[in-house]
Amino acid sequence: MQNIGIYINPPQEVWPELCKRAEQDNSAIAERVEAIVGRVASEGDAALYDLAAQIDGVKLDSLAVAEEEFLQAEQKVSAEVKGAIEVAVKNITAFHRAQMPACIEVDTSAGVKCIQKPIAIRRVGLYIPGGTAPLFSTVLMLALPAAIAGCGEVVLCTPTNKQGQVAAEVLYAARRCGVEKVFKVGGAQAVAAMAYGTESVPKVDKIFGPGNRYVTLAKQLVSGRNTSIDMPAGPSEVMIMADESASAEFVAADMLSQAEHGRDSQAMVVCNSEQLADEIVCEVLRQAQLLDRADYVAHSLFNSRVVVFDNRNDMIAFANEYAAEHLIVSMQDAWGVVEEIYAAGSVFVGNYSPESAGDYASGTNHTLPTSGWAHSCSGVNIDSFMRKMTIQEISADGIRGLAPTIIAMAEAEGLEAHAAAVKVRIKNCK
Amino acid sequence: MQNIGIYINPPQEVWPELCKRAEQDNSAIAERVEAIVGRVASEGDAALYDLAAQIDGVKLDSLAVAEEEFLQAEQKVSAEVKGAIEVAVKNITAFHRAQMPACIEVDTSAGVKCIQKPIAIRRVGLYIPGGTAPLFSTVLMLALPAAIAGCGEVVLCTPTNKQGQVAAEVLYAARRCGVEKVFKVGGAQAVAAMAYGTESVPKVDKIFGPGNRYVTLAKQLVSGRNTSIDMPAGPSEVMIMADESASAEFVAADMLSQAEHGRDSQAMVVCNSEQLADEIVCEVLRQAQLLDRADYVAHSLFNSRVVVFDNRNDMIAFANEYAAEHLIVSMQDAWGVVEEIYAAGSVFVGNYSPESAGDYASGTNHTLPTSGWAHSCSGVNIDSFMRKMTIQEISADGIRGLAPTIIAMAEAEGLEAHAAAVKVRIKNCK
Repeated sequence: MQNIGIYINPPQEVWPELCKRAEQDNSAIAERVEAIVGRVASEGDAALYDLAAQIDGVKLDSLAVAEEEFLQAEQKVSAEVKGAIEVAVKNITAFHRAQMPACIEVDTSAGVKCIQKPIAIRRVGLYIPGGTAPLFSTVLMLALPAAIAGCGEVVLCTPTNKQGQVAAEVLYAARRCGVEKVFKVGGAQAVAAMAYGTESVPKVDKIFGPGNRYVTLAKQLVSGRNTSIDMPAGPSEVMIMADESASAEFVAADMLSQAEHGRDSQAMVVCNSEQLADEIVCEVLRQAQLLDRADYVAHSLFNSRVVVFDNRNDMIAFANEYAAEHLIVSMQDAWGVVEEIYAAGSVFVGNYSPESAGDYASGTNHTLPTSGWAHSCSGVNIDSFMRKMTIQEISADGIRGLAPTIIAMAEAEGLEAHAAAVKVRIKNCK
Repeated sequence: MQNIGIYINPPQEVWPELCKRAEQDNSAIAERVEAIVGRVASEGDAALYDLAAQIDGVKLDSLAVAEEEFLQAEQKVSAEVKGAIEVAVKNITAFHRAQMPACIEVDTSAGVKCIQKPIAIRRVGLYIPGGTAPLFSTVLMLALPAAIAGCGEVVLCTPTNKQGQVAAEVLYAARRCGVEKVFKVGGAQAVAAMAYGTESVPKVDKIFGPGNRYVTLAKQLVSGRNTSIDMPAGPSEVMIMADESASAEFVAADMLSQAEHGRDSQAMVVCNSEQLADEIVCEVLRQAQLLDRADYVAHSLFNSRVVVFDNRNDMIAFANEYAAEHLIVSMQDAWGVVEEIYAAGSVFVGNYSPESAGDYASGTNHTLPTSGWAHSCSGVNIDSFMRKMTIQEISADGIRGLAPTIIAMAEAEGLEAHAAAVKVRIKNCK
């Protein structure tokens, strides 16, 4: 655990270095992802079956999950997990429903009505990674807001195990959230399938969800072509701001819960005393031993840093520069600090708000901007599943009133036909 | 004008072909843009001075526009244009101010408070193209919402003429909207400067604004790296839905106002009779002759099409498939039609709502999704300049209540440290 560096009052010049995330060089896989996307776009289902066999070693009979599989999943999931899902669904629904935007209508001038109308995106695609654990919580975080927003068609792609099966919890959660179309497709090929459509997988307008580097790169690729994506993705991260009101035990537990995500993920601490820094590092060491995956977790703390500042302003400025995906504020004046935070994905206030609460069940979304994207991006929320379309209706009087303005501006911009489109109407105004 | 094809009741299989925009193949310039972006990122101002000389043939003494230049601009702009700008500012401000999102607070369970807080993006960069005409209307469309949202730093880049001057209207509009930092940088280098920062040009978090293929490609490039962008960009387009209540004269004028944007742009008509289709094409021919740039405009109508359907449902379905940047609805039951439109950037209802009204002065934004991106993207609006950060505060009772849910889900996902972060708190709950 000697890997966790402690930095005392680092000067501002070194902050960018301290804020660095684990480098992700995707150039090596770019060609491969491009080839996969191209193949799926041109060959459709045939490419998906073939890639499942080739890459995942799975022989699939059908890409779509069958009704029977949903029913089996329902039987397999324990009553305890079903109960937990109900609580999470209730809280996530309550918070996201409250976010529904209203239609806005303004008469900007006499006879000039302007409307901003929120409209659900028609067709959305959700990607749920497979791997060692079935991330059914992400199903809730994506499918519930899609349903609340009113998206007409929701498609879910997820890889199978070697036996061609999707995790029962994922299927159960999907159906619980109203998702009927689940496909056994993983990786870059899933993204391509949803972006271009195949015989089985419908084309969607926007793709959501986390994934490995192949998935991330494929999402980036299609986002420059024909399909929107939720946000740029990178490894998960947490920053914990702590002072004497914090508990070293809790802080350490939060760092470890981040570390178990993988060796790319990062747990940062910003605190106000060396003593607290030392206590936290000791606690991490102690608690890590208690975990089954102790070695794995220890390795993941390579990227972790504890930064000590002797004043509150620097703590806050550093947190804003870092722009954490998850920011836990365990400080005396936590709300005063939060007031000054402008760059973070989701914030957890006080000693009893662990990141895991937001990961599963408090109601906030866990699909959040990483790698500093919290400077400019929101996490997934109701807006992510909606568009805002503007509408204007101008009366004859209204266009008469606006005409001199439009004509003057259009002519100053050298766009005479723009002016003419107004003049022809004025001439004909009843 | 024989270029305008008329299509009668085209079967749905050919709709995708009819909805095609002019192809843009940027692969030829990709390497060049990559080189420019790389040079600016590593050499800063020196690269900007050198590229201005090399690409634009301009020798600049300073990148920043000086106070004196702002003052000269103020004197150069006519009283008429200043007055027009005031009207536009008033309307755009009224409509965008009404869009300001509220802070949302929900207690999802006892002791579990979830907040969604809108926060202005701190540093935004606006790109205003140069070229033949000074597009100062775009300054209003980007700088006003940035100011209303409360963005802390607004930077504007725009190319100069051969004498190293920025158009007076652009400088006047910038200052009118509170933009103090204007830089004489154009093209892909401007995007790179704002994405990476140079000695003169501050780094920003998000870049907005239209531009040529170099600008578009550079924006796409940096959006995969470290800086958000407003939206994918393509040539401008309008679709007009017309029936017997429409005026062929107005429809033709709107088509021509689109055509004068350039030969990539597209004007589409969807109407319900061949006779109206013929009338519209005749009117386009007649009115085009009256324009100074008649030849230019005629050429731009290469991409235009008039599609005739004998029923309202097909008209609407085709309009939704096309997903126009601008959609003018000149139909008897215009509002009924608009109710069924889900994919369009901005909609213009009735005979007296020309696109030019929204381009300049009605109050709606004119930075809109093109090339079918209206299926998934909004136009620029207040949200574009803000992020939504979630915050949660959980009390000791709250975490006790959520604990069984979080622990069950974390364990089912195989994330024991996530469960442990809750258990350690329960154990210590006061």
